[in-house]
Amino acid sequence: MNLAIDFGNTCTKLALFEKYELKQKFVLEKLTVNNLNVVLTNHSVKNIIYSSVVQLESELEGFFQRHQALVLTAATPLPFQNQYLTPETLGKDRLAAVAAATHLFPNQTTLIIDAGTCITYDWLIEGRNYIGGNIAPGLQMRLNAMHEFTDALPLVENHWNEQYVGDSTMTAMQNGALLGTLLEVEGIIEWSSSKWKEINVILTGGNTDFFANHLKKKIFASPELVLLGLNKILDHNARLEE
Amino acid sequence: MNLAIDFGNTCTKLALFEKYELKQKFVLEKLTVNNLNVVLTNHSVKNIIYSSVVQLESELEGFFQRHQALVLTAATPLPFQNQYLTPETLGKDRLAAVAAATHLFPNQTTLIIDAGTCITYDWLIEGRNYIGGNIAPGLQMRLNAMHEFTDALPLVENHWNEQYVGDSTMTAMQNGALLGTLLEVEGIIEWSSSKWKEINVILTGGNTDFFANHLKKKIFASPELVLLGLNKILDHNARLEE
Repeated sequence: MNLAIDFGNTCTKLALFEKYELKQKFVLEKLTVNNLNVVLTNHSVKNIIYSSVVQLESELEGFFQRHQALVLTAATPLPFQNQYLTPETLGKDRLAAVAAATHLFPNQTTLIIDAGTCITYDWLIEGRNYIGGNIAPGLQMRLNAMHEFTDALPLVENHWNEQYVGDSTMTAMQNGALLGTLLEVEGIIEWSSSKWKEINVILTGGNTDFFANHLKKKIFASPELVLLGLNKILDHNARLEE
Repeated sequence: MNLAIDFGNTCTKLALFEKYELKQKFVLEKLTVNNLNVVLTNHSVKNIIYSSVVQLESELEGFFQRHQALVLTAATPLPFQNQYLTPETLGKDRLAAVAAATHLFPNQTTLIIDAGTCITYDWLIEGRNYIGGNIAPGLQMRLNAMHEFTDALPLVENHWNEQYVGDSTMTAMQNGALLGTLLEVEGIIEWSSSKWKEINVILTGGNTDFFANHLKKKIFASPELVLLGLNKILDHNARLEE
């Protein structure tokens, strides 16, 4: 089995894969070497990959070195061409999500939307050419920003209104954040569809449900896209070694 | 002549109107009673209106009281019906902009977009019924938010790229803010056009030029919409007194 680990800002996700099938998933606030030893005792793990947006404790780094884990960096061989001009500042979660798209839709053109703290849009052309993407503020960030960066506006709850026209400060701000983002995402999808004709749209990240429920176009929702992509990159590198 | 004064967060705008014609405009970082006395000495000012998002100094307030100036508040009679449920928290600049629309496009349906620190969308139906609006983060606020609310993202310059797909962290963030907002505004205009068929779009605020240059639909750009609206409200209240 393969073990893929995604260290995020707020939690760490682990997944066990048998080839490309996700067998088991864990989400932990804080992953310890003890946790990892339990996983290795209970499952026959062959290869490990991890990706982190935070600095790991030395104990964890020692564990990964002992087990010859693959760490995802800007230098890791990938199953696609990366045309980003600044690969060293490209989020590792974005790299992993693109890798997942090469597996889910081989040889096809795909737009990957990761709707979390920020919303990232990434374009993979014909399954092998990653041409880049955009980064916009996420839903909650828009609400926070209007409150933090003005004197008068309150912090309002992340809530969808059926009415497109706000009739109070609260609903006006909720629409400005949620409806505004929805229209932005619709616009990006429309532009992509007109440019590439046949395009898949994959949605992932914490706000997947909101967009999946409200977007006009049918999209492919994949909450575990990053883990899936880490597994794909692990497999790609194992093949390179063979 | 009418004198309209708009006290903003960063500057104060004054305009002299002969009926509905803007005769002269001044923008000052800080308006003093001395400045006002010079204006009154050089011009025959009959009525004064002002609106402020900041607390005025007592000297200025004394001046306005002596000259029986009209101050725009939530209780000021307006040349339209206000259906907002929380009029006391509705920005005075939004009220003034809607008042201007009643003058520019009488009896018509108008969407007013004020693109500044925040972007406000306001809908005036058939020239007399203000049904409400939305508030979203402005261009610069989106760039600031991504930097302030994440660990990894830099503060990038407010710059338009012709390429819709970012190929570096800088262009990805610029597209996420500028292209994203443009698509949001396009989406709001399209939705409004389909709902009300005949609709005017007025654009005002610091980012007027950016949107005027990039929006598909022809819009009416009016940088002095708030001053125009203050003058309209002054006229409306003078008529009520007659």
